[in-house]
Amino acid sequence: LTVTAPQGFVASGVHARIRKEKRDLALVRSLVPATGAAMWTQNRVLAAPVVVSKHHLELAQPQAVVVNSGIANAATGEQGITDAATTAEHAGSLLGLAPEQVIVLSTGVIGAPLPMDRVLAGLDAASTALSADGGPDAAEAILTTDTHPKTSVSHGAGFTVGGMAKGSGMIHPNLATMLAVVTTDYPLEPGEAIDFLRPTVALSFNAITVDGECSTNDAVVLLSSGAAQIERTPATDAAFAAALHTVCAELSHAIVADGEGATLLAEISVSGAASDDEAKAIAQRIATSPLVKTALFGRDANWGRVLMAAGSAPFNGGYAQLDPALVSLSYNGTPVLVDGAPQNVEPPVDGATCTIELELGLGSGTAGYLTSDLSYDYVRINAEYRS
Amino acid sequence: LTVTAPQGFVASGVHARIRKEKRDLALVRSLVPATGAAMWTQNRVLAAPVVVSKHHLELAQPQAVVVNSGIANAATGEQGITDAATTAEHAGSLLGLAPEQVIVLSTGVIGAPLPMDRVLAGLDAASTALSADGGPDAAEAILTTDTHPKTSVSHGAGFTVGGMAKGSGMIHPNLATMLAVVTTDYPLEPGEAIDFLRPTVALSFNAITVDGECSTNDAVVLLSSGAAQIERTPATDAAFAAALHTVCAELSHAIVADGEGATLLAEISVSGAASDDEAKAIAQRIATSPLVKTALFGRDANWGRVLMAAGSAPFNGGYAQLDPALVSLSYNGTPVLVDGAPQNVEPPVDGATCTIELELGLGSGTAGYLTSDLSYDYVRINAEYRS
Repeated sequence: LTVTAPQGFVASGVHARIRKEKRDLALVRSLVPATGAAMWTQNRVLAAPVVVSKHHLELAQPQAVVVNSGIANAATGEQGITDAATTAEHAGSLLGLAPEQVIVLSTGVIGAPLPMDRVLAGLDAASTALSADGGPDAAEAILTTDTHPKTSVSHGAGFTVGGMAKGSGMIHPNLATMLAVVTTDYPLEPGEAIDFLRPTVALSFNAITVDGECSTNDAVVLLSSGAAQIERTPATDAAFAAALHTVCAELSHAIVADGEGATLLAEISVSGAASDDEAKAIAQRIATSPLVKTALFGRDANWGRVLMAAGSAPFNGGYAQLDPALVSLSYNGTPVLVDGAPQNVEPPVDGATCTIELELGLGSGTAGYLTSDLSYDYVRINAEYRS
Repeated sequence: LTVTAPQGFVASGVHARIRKEKRDLALVRSLVPATGAAMWTQNRVLAAPVVVSKHHLELAQPQAVVVNSGIANAATGEQGITDAATTAEHAGSLLGLAPEQVIVLSTGVIGAPLPMDRVLAGLDAASTALSADGGPDAAEAILTTDTHPKTSVSHGAGFTVGGMAKGSGMIHPNLATMLAVVTTDYPLEPGEAIDFLRPTVALSFNAITVDGECSTNDAVVLLSSGAAQIERTPATDAAFAAALHTVCAELSHAIVADGEGATLLAEISVSGAASDDEAKAIAQRIATSPLVKTALFGRDANWGRVLMAAGSAPFNGGYAQLDPALVSLSYNGTPVLVDGAPQNVEPPVDGATCTIELELGLGSGTAGYLTSDLSYDYVRINAEYRS
């Protein structure tokens, strides 16, 4: 049931004709006063709904989320801001909420205006269709070129976390891209949601890549209805954090596995770095290297490329620390390099997953990163596609 | 005649059987006491010849350069250092030079040892073959998967600059990659060569990309025989700087045009940035974006992707400054975005070149970057190739 799995939520997904076929407008709302938070793309070019929703979050606790697919409402100037604000206003009036209690998200083509007549009529329909079984329709409505819906539910003792996401590449062909809405009935005070969301996003949505791009529309929203009415303790908080992480990690995993043209999912694991930040810089550099990714497509344990990438990971205006004489590297558990010495083995890279473990021997910094391979289909999808 | 075009130089290129077919060992030497300098890859993983040659340059002015293709002598541990030092020593003994007067460069497979018997026998043959006509043989011997030699000669008033380069991608499939040797008869005092080399490399070899990779072996070497014996003035210095830049720019251009799988060469030009450094960060981010590069392969003026990339250019731990409302963008001279407003035009992207001009409206920072498109062939070459 995705976002309607936790108590207190209703949702819907309708076809507003923003896209030709397929549901394209999702609505999620809490039936009781909710708390929430969001994390946003760091791109300097922010889509209009991101600008408007960030502002709304400063003014009020979010009670509902509107998501449209098909048009990103990015690079649309003043009109785009007005359209995003109008969307929130209309949703609010339908739901009995102030505009600032509504979060608006968009994903789709950059540079095109929202067809507001269709969006507003779609909102009327979505509002009527709201139901406690509406999660799957909503999860479908937010997709663009994804090949299937991405959903996850995790049950704790007396509470539930549910989520839906879209994304098939950190950014899409002219589409803007990764969105996730996570709901829970675990009770949170206003202002607390961000403290739970930030650390888990760092380890999930911010530790995946398909092509290293960073979209104008990326957003993760967490809403809590508090309807579970359980007694909070440090232990239940920890259980909630764990359930939230399970949902975010599953959604992230699903996004990479459905990466554009992906035939393989690789888990990059870096340890022994001078710091966690340097470990992350190195893991990200490996995960975004076209040479590493094409080798994975070729099912080739081409460790020289991993080493080359690791040695040139941007960090603090230079490169992250690495001493080649101390480096050990393994593919799927088979060492290919031990303390800088090549082992003259060729571990098989077959199947749909691969783990690459790099130990730097410098300190205690660690990081993980999920990535996909770079295939002919990635080129085809992104060279041929123009919506 | 490439590196033998300036007076005072001899060169040769022989087949030392490091590679199966094709010349694979080049030798360049100055017949009179030379001065010189080099610039090296910043990768933390340095190939053995880079380590040894950097040390040699600290001890003496360079008089000769040995380049082998086929084996990069990178990730080869202590043995690699010994092999690079032995190569310099043997070349020195053949040429009547101290080992530290010899620069050694290697390009080819990472993680494999140099076949030293073949290298040393090859050096004997290369030393015998040295001639004032040997430039083209040398230019051929340094190539790996390049489809043709890259050479350039520029004549000033009474002096000449000549160069050869290899590279077909900033880094190659398991090969390590961009090398250039530039010679001149323009007289330079010891220590001066680097002052001429550094600024022109920043604008040429350091402003190109094929896939954003940074190799373990990249190097640019400048040798001056001083044989032109002209009277130096500020005006002749400026003329020399211009000729040097012409040669470096032509070699850089040739490398990108011969980029792996490249079907199009794109010139990215950024102006109006808050600073030159930020302009360069933005130009580089656009030039390395897989989405921008696949769109170019599809001959699609997909400006939304350029804007997305520009808005997420890493700079000082964040992103370079950019205000979407001030941005203007054009393809081949046709504006697609003016002060943030889309122009609803679709400029044709056809032929083998494309210029993308981005004006940020923030300050006076400018930068240029050359890049290639990302094609099926790039994936094929890098997924299938394993030497």
